[in-house]
Amino acid sequence: MSTSAVEVIARQSRVAAGQLSSTSETLRNLALSNMAEALESVRRQVLEVNAREVAKARQNGQTPAMVRRLTIDDKVFQYMLDRLRKVARRPDPLNRVLQGHTNPAGLRVYKKSAPLGVIGIIYESRPNVTTDAAGVCIKSGNAVILRGGSEALQSNALLTDAMIKGAVDAGLPQHAIQIIRMPGHEAVDALLKMDGYVDVLIPRGGKGLIKRIAGGTRIPVIKHYDGICHLYLAEDADPTQAVDLAVNSKCQSIQVCNALETLLVDKHCAKPLLPLLHKAFSANAVELRGCEATLKILPGITRATEDDWHSEYLAPILAVKIVDGLDQAIAHINHYGSGHTDAIVTQNLKMAQQFEQRVDSASVLINASTRLSGGGDYGLGSVVGISTDKLHARGPVGPDELTTYKWVAYGNGHLRH
Amino acid sequence: MSTSAVEVIARQSRVAAGQLSSTSETLRNLALSNMAEALESVRRQVLEVNAREVAKARQNGQTPAMVRRLTIDDKVFQYMLDRLRKVARRPDPLNRVLQGHTNPAGLRVYKKSAPLGVIGIIYESRPNVTTDAAGVCIKSGNAVILRGGSEALQSNALLTDAMIKGAVDAGLPQHAIQIIRMPGHEAVDALLKMDGYVDVLIPRGGKGLIKRIAGGTRIPVIKHYDGICHLYLAEDADPTQAVDLAVNSKCQSIQVCNALETLLVDKHCAKPLLPLLHKAFSANAVELRGCEATLKILPGITRATEDDWHSEYLAPILAVKIVDGLDQAIAHINHYGSGHTDAIVTQNLKMAQQFEQRVDSASVLINASTRLSGGGDYGLGSVVGISTDKLHARGPVGPDELTTYKWVAYGNGHLRH
Repeated sequence: MSTSAVEVIARQSRVAAGQLSSTSETLRNLALSNMAEALESVRRQVLEVNAREVAKARQNGQTPAMVRRLTIDDKVFQYMLDRLRKVARRPDPLNRVLQGHTNPAGLRVYKKSAPLGVIGIIYESRPNVTTDAAGVCIKSGNAVILRGGSEALQSNALLTDAMIKGAVDAGLPQHAIQIIRMPGHEAVDALLKMDGYVDVLIPRGGKGLIKRIAGGTRIPVIKHYDGICHLYLAEDADPTQAVDLAVNSKCQSIQVCNALETLLVDKHCAKPLLPLLHKAFSANAVELRGCEATLKILPGITRATEDDWHSEYLAPILAVKIVDGLDQAIAHINHYGSGHTDAIVTQNLKMAQQFEQRVDSASVLINASTRLSGGGDYGLGSVVGISTDKLHARGPVGPDELTTYKWVAYGNGHLRH
Repeated sequence: MSTSAVEVIARQSRVAAGQLSSTSETLRNLALSNMAEALESVRRQVLEVNAREVAKARQNGQTPAMVRRLTIDDKVFQYMLDRLRKVARRPDPLNRVLQGHTNPAGLRVYKKSAPLGVIGIIYESRPNVTTDAAGVCIKSGNAVILRGGSEALQSNALLTDAMIKGAVDAGLPQHAIQIIRMPGHEAVDALLKMDGYVDVLIPRGGKGLIKRIAGGTRIPVIKHYDGICHLYLAEDADPTQAVDLAVNSKCQSIQVCNALETLLVDKHCAKPLLPLLHKAFSANAVELRGCEATLKILPGITRATEDDWHSEYLAPILAVKIVDGLDQAIAHINHYGSGHTDAIVTQNLKMAQQFEQRVDSASVLINASTRLSGGGDYGLGSVVGISTDKLHARGPVGPDELTTYKWVAYGNGHLRH
């Protein structure tokens, strides 16, 4: 697939985006439900094709983690359909009047949400991104260009063809959903040059992929880098709740971006708490790496280095630091954190509010597991990714985050004097 | 001023941003009113210093337009103070709860607005940007680093020193407002490298400046490129209103970004309307450049080339094209326009709504002059610039647009299962 083939796709998407911008909520929701139905009808084929791709990935010596991400079983497939139907039931992200007023001269002004236009999604392995991304984009009236990993090429093509059929049957334009079918870097490189047609790119995958995309295009990129997440156990933290939240934040799923990486323990509760935490983490086979002060209480554990505070392990390792109060905890988080998800355990309202206000992160949780940050528990229905940027979208990227807005003014011959 | 001097400023701003994030609305508004008072007390000095800079600019052979932009007279000064006071009276852009819900497990989740952090403003000539930008940034709880043009160095420094005094007297951190005092490219180049400290850059000036900034930094940039603005006179446009709106859009101020550049006239009303328009524009010394069909009705005018449809003249020239209905008008606007400001004259509601929905621009006006797009008539109080981006801020950039948001969740030991 040459640059010009990608350009044809990009241009077709631009035209489709123009048509999508004035589609009704009813039409877009019908398309989503049709897409789920059309997928339902190819369930067996998708599972077969995917099984072959999974077998091939195993033969090629892919890691078990990668094979797991690639796999579509009945449960995953059902989950994909459920999310399409869930996003269909969400309120319309378009044409929301965000603010408005009538000026003294009688000009009626309002600001309303509108689609971004054409969204490019570049992702690795997980075929569920194919349906999640298409669902979120169609919900928000955007045309989408999908570009999945080569190891899932056929699964993705099959899923996309079914969704296109469902969408077109509902009355959406033919090119509202498109997929780039050729493997290899050339097609991605071509897509990066389509700044005349594509409004935003969302890469999903390793940091390497994201850096390559962001550094190689003039198209705005919604990025997700690190998830160096913290939990701060304040002086008054309830010991049982503290241990439960720390363990759940770290262990519920080790390899995900909102898993805990650094535990901050207030110096006033470190002595009673650290042995409890050590015991609980040992039972979960998590290695602790502690600061100087932590080592005095838990002499058996590894000493943490400066690198540990900067680390997103995505592994059963946890950095532990004793801090002197809220200010030091917040300073540590804002310095070493990645602005993804950070949490506190406290019953002190003022402390909770200070933490909420001053921690500069996409998600700030009080007495809740870091694992609860994300589209599901935040009620977004379905998301296309998570952003660690501060501009435009921050945190989970659902249908609302794929909108821009426009200012509209109705006058009656109003002039500027 | 070396890189390290700029780095000191950037680091100080980052610390100030941390402190600003939890300031109250009352404190920030007090600071704004103190800033206006402090400016009031240096009015005479500012006018004197500015007069010397204006004289120097004249001696250096600067254009009258540039000299006019540089000048602070009593009226301009009053306007600067008024806008600081106006922005103080606006609702607080921070801590607005944007959405929220309680999930089935009882986790209370909400999304609330928060400051972006550190804003860098790089601008040319106009010293009013110094006070406008500082006002909008302080209102929204952001630390600001100002970097004005060298021709206004002393005016800007005087204005900034007064504002810092006012802000600090109110209790804001010392480095909430800072200015880079050294002329020349080196300081700007150093600022572009401060992606560890600066959250967003807003360049204000010519397209060359904006391209240089956007192309030379990893810091997100809120950009303003062209203002190729259109007015479409629909078939049913009232002739008097059509002529008045066209003339006001083009002539009220020729050199500004929301001035009219291309007039689209429906073929069904071109015959009666074009001679009226020609007469009105001739009276205002505006040259018309017409398409083939226009020339048949106005044989005396210049023929427009492809370049004309792409032109932001900022001069007394207007491109005129006859189009066959709404679809063609919208297609022309979305193809040749810059997504800034576009308007229609019609009494047909369906046509107005189609135009509103399908024109992909920051501002869409119905029966109103293109000159009415902007912070003033949109009720933003004061703005720091205008964005032609679609992500994050679109159109006028006021205090709301200098915020991000964070997700906050309050639980009671909530875990993920």
